[in-house]
Amino acid sequence: MTGEFMPHHMMPFPLNTSDILKNAALRYPEVEVVSALPDGSRHRYTYLDAYRRSAKVANALTRQGVQPGERIATLAVNHYRHFELYYGISGMGAVVHTLNARLFAEQLQYIINHAEDTLIFVDPELLPLLEAIAGQMPTVRQIVVLCDAQELPDSDVFELTDYESLIDQEPADFEWPRLESSAPCGLCYTSGTTGNPKGVMYEQGSTVLHAMMSGGSQYLGFDEWSVAMPIVPMYHVVAWGVPFSAPLFGAKLVLPGCALTGENIQSLIEDEKVTQAFAVPTIWLTLHNYLQSSQKQIPSLKMVGVGGAASPKALVKTYAEHYGVYWMGIWGMTETSPLATAAIQTPQMETMAPEDRYELQASAGRPMFGVEIEIFDGKDRPLPHDGVTRGNLRVRGPWILASYFKGEGADKFVDGWFETGDVAVINPQGYLRVVDRSKDVIKSGGEWISSVELENAALHYEAVNEACVIGAAHEKWDERPIMLITLREGADYDENQLREVLLSKVAKWWLPDAVIVVDELPHTGTGKLRKVDVRDQYRNYLIEA
Amino acid sequence: MTGEFMPHHMMPFPLNTSDILKNAALRYPEVEVVSALPDGSRHRYTYLDAYRRSAKVANALTRQGVQPGERIATLAVNHYRHFELYYGISGMGAVVHTLNARLFAEQLQYIINHAEDTLIFVDPELLPLLEAIAGQMPTVRQIVVLCDAQELPDSDVFELTDYESLIDQEPADFEWPRLESSAPCGLCYTSGTTGNPKGVMYEQGSTVLHAMMSGGSQYLGFDEWSVAMPIVPMYHVVAWGVPFSAPLFGAKLVLPGCALTGENIQSLIEDEKVTQAFAVPTIWLTLHNYLQSSQKQIPSLKMVGVGGAASPKALVKTYAEHYGVYWMGIWGMTETSPLATAAIQTPQMETMAPEDRYELQASAGRPMFGVEIEIFDGKDRPLPHDGVTRGNLRVRGPWILASYFKGEGADKFVDGWFETGDVAVINPQGYLRVVDRSKDVIKSGGEWISSVELENAALHYEAVNEACVIGAAHEKWDERPIMLITLREGADYDENQLREVLLSKVAKWWLPDAVIVVDELPHTGTGKLRKVDVRDQYRNYLIEA
Ligand SMILES: Nc1ncnc2c1ncn2[C@@H]1O[C@H](COP(=O)(O)O)[C@@H](O)[C@H]1O
Repeated sequence: MTGEFMPHHMMPFPLNTSDILKNAALRYPEVEVVSALPDGSRHRYTYLDAYRRSAKVANALTRQGVQPGERIATLAVNHYRHFELYYGISGMGAVVHTLNARLFAEQLQYIINHAEDTLIFVDPELLPLLEAIAGQMPTVRQIVVLCDAQELPDSDVFELTDYESLIDQEPADFEWPRLESSAPCGLCYTSGTTGNPKGVMYEQGSTVLHAMMSGGSQYLGFDEWSVAMPIVPMYHVVAWGVPFSAPLFGAKLVLPGCALTGENIQSLIEDEKVTQAFAVPTIWLTLHNYLQSSQKQIPSLKMVGVGGAASPKALVKTYAEHYGVYWMGIWGMTETSPLATAAIQTPQMETMAPEDRYELQASAGRPMFGVEIEIFDGKDRPLPHDGVTRGNLRVRGPWILASYFKGEGADKFVDGWFETGDVAVINPQGYLRVVDRSKDVIKSGGEWISSVELENAALHYEAVNEACVIGAAHEKWDERPIMLITLREGADYDENQLREVLLSKVAKWWLPDAVIVVDELPHTGTGKLRKVDVRDQYRNYLIEA
Repeated sequence: MTGEFMPHHMMPFPLNTSDILKNAALRYPEVEVVSALPDGSRHRYTYLDAYRRSAKVANALTRQGVQPGERIATLAVNHYRHFELYYGISGMGAVVHTLNARLFAEQLQYIINHAEDTLIFVDPELLPLLEAIAGQMPTVRQIVVLCDAQELPDSDVFELTDYESLIDQEPADFEWPRLESSAPCGLCYTSGTTGNPKGVMYEQGSTVLHAMMSGGSQYLGFDEWSVAMPIVPMYHVVAWGVPFSAPLFGAKLVLPGCALTGENIQSLIEDEKVTQAFAVPTIWLTLHNYLQSSQKQIPSLKMVGVGGAASPKALVKTYAEHYGVYWMGIWGMTETSPLATAAIQTPQMETMAPEDRYELQASAGRPMFGVEIEIFDGKDRPLPHDGVTRGNLRVRGPWILASYFKGEGADKFVDGWFETGDVAVINPQGYLRVVDRSKDVIKSGGEWISSVELENAALHYEAVNEACVIGAAHEKWDERPIMLITLREGADYDENQLREVLLSKVAKWWLPDAVIVVDELPHTGTGKLRKVDVRDQYRNYLIEA
């Protein structure tokens, strides 16, 4: 490059989260944000209202002396006040640290102290979680309850402020700073790694880029006719970024609160004419069961985005054939902002046999523009995309983590890639299928057995409610799979029938060496199987038995 | 921000133009690029083919020792080889400098030398433009003709290479470098300013961001069902970025070559099932005239994007009511990458009276996410968005110019805004209407008269073919408008009738002080009225008369 170039030909104009709501207030001032409240009522307002109240939040924080990069925590489900906080906190330059409402007291305490949160905005219903660790959060100087003065709960241990009083007198506009692209704006801890939870710090630039690309036709498909309902919680993985991508593209936003029953979800879809909704597979099973028993309909719903766990193919088919809903399998992690790959609808699918299409929909799809994925063997060599070869999944791109908060977990970052801990195959068309977590993989006689596939196979037997497969130590084969199951209430269970079902789905040598019926399986705060605990308990089952 | 933050939490992973075609080769390998060739035939291949050939281009340039930032020129219309060059040149780190095929010899010479181009890729049909300045391009070391060995023209003045021989032996993949976001990747000169043409240098980051946002539902609306035809030339304003945004979103691309007759456009739309097409208003008038006389149809066409000049409302209505086509008015400039605002379809429009909707469609629309616009008075004070107040339009955002190439025209950059030279109004809903260029504005008795509006009004009188209004010096009012017109062949013209038509459209005090019938009006290389010339000649007409 010759010397006469200027340092910038194009404006150094980093896009910020505040631009999203400012733009929505200009372009979509009357588009609604609808929130289901705990009392069963619904709160409705517009993007313009939300913009004004987010400006009030930013003014309140500024008045309190909140500094750029300071961590401000929220402990709240999906509703309009939480939405305002996303923008008010991140827009004025602080970091919105979403605390996971499913964590235990000691985990919450660890995370709040590690993040050095200074304020916590909390739902009245979730206040007891904080009261349990009162006096053990030295950096926290104020607890604000997300309610108005009348609703403010009494507390023996805290001096509480209510949110409405905090922001009431503030101006409804704000001089949003133009923040660097790398300025931190959001923080979410993940317990999907070994050891203590680790913080994933989102940046202004990564958050906006992720919203720009994931909201578009190559992924969530939002436009001004969309009605988006993130059922995935705002307290975890930013509700898949939908609170940013929906207003960016002018979609109406439906925030379902905390009571995620089939009945509530159905009525929100019906009343608010939801077109796209986002949740883990369990939710869609719940909704399907409710629709079957209630004979209710969900005609407005066009698409469900389903991730966080592998998609059960049977449910993909059910949603297509019963409800005319396109099931879009997606893959992502807290560390990937979180959206990375998706099985979006394609023209090719229109001419496919339905079963082949369901197969694709149940995969994790292909990386959206901006994300690259690759599978590697144990020696960092890339593996073929043949749909069969399994490898360690790595990912890279502008909204993929480069370093955990405070530099932890440095071993996860290899040659510019993030090591996901997932084991996956990629087919020649680029479709990803996650077959296991690397720490869950069972290696029997030098060959891998997928615990996830065995678990999925077990679900084809009606009596099984949930299945958990781990590798148990074995003298001859090193590891052999064993299966723990919980049963559906009142179901007829016969282990031989289960084994027949399994045999119709997997290789004979994959069959578990033992099947154990238990009353309950342990789950993480985000509803995933806590396999580490199961493994601790049952690791030597085959040896001791 | 406390000290323990790492420099990067998210990956420093600047997106590059090479990512777009790489992604298209993976996700849309079979989607077609169709080119209309000069002999009337059509060339067809896929994004995967294009990717491979762009890699060959990158390898050929690397072998020739082309350096990062080096300017490689193209002088070509819209076709697949030009498309490959966009990616091959910019992807390997050089700058694709598109030369405007409508410029005169001395302008071309100025621009090539100013840019210090080293190679020029030229269409056989455009070679004479270069032959006319042979020996006067000291930095140019090779001229490559976009054809194969058999088609290579003879030249008395150049030793020519053919494109196919140049790339034939090269490998069909390339190790694309990961280039900085601010790395230069494209160069386009504009003659839309006073003085010499000025260079607008696009960057990797600005180009990709522009494509990500402008290709989406908030603007051009591409998805895998789209068939996009940029009629706007690839040698000017990057064909509105469509060669980047269409493959990013998986749209099929139709490149119409050079013969832009109504017949050719209609047959491309019909045969290739074009859904979205992009051109200046003149083209849509041409097509309409052809459709009327031929009784042909364009049923696949859903939308036309129309910019570069104000949209005539009558044509908006015609396209809606005759052809069921949504006319989307847009505004942008070479300096804005070029897309900035657009009158996209909205749910509100569905319930509007048609005439109101046409009014909106004929405007320049609203800024897409990422772009901000504002109007200012002469003292840098922002003006109200009341749909009436006219001001100097300024624009800012990550794909808006911060400095012309080599630092020229520095007076156009004010307080972080780019001064467009357009005069505009913004209505309360944020819709932009460009009413004039500031250098064309007529100030009469302290009040502005829009030459553009007067010209448009004159076109409502059938006999008028083209009208040009300038401000002529006037003793009492400082300036008064005068109008020059050319007449339609064989039309009955009566100045009084014209004045009556004008009076039905504009205020009485706006009526031109003189109407002058001329045989011809001067145009710039890109077909715009060369008002500077008219003004030079007629500036004192009212005083001398
Ligand atoms: N929608 C529009 N209405 C009026 N003028 C326009 C419109 N779009 C573009 N222009 C004019 O074209 C100029 C840009 O020219 P160019 O850089 O050649 O694309 C703008 O500055 C405007 O003067």
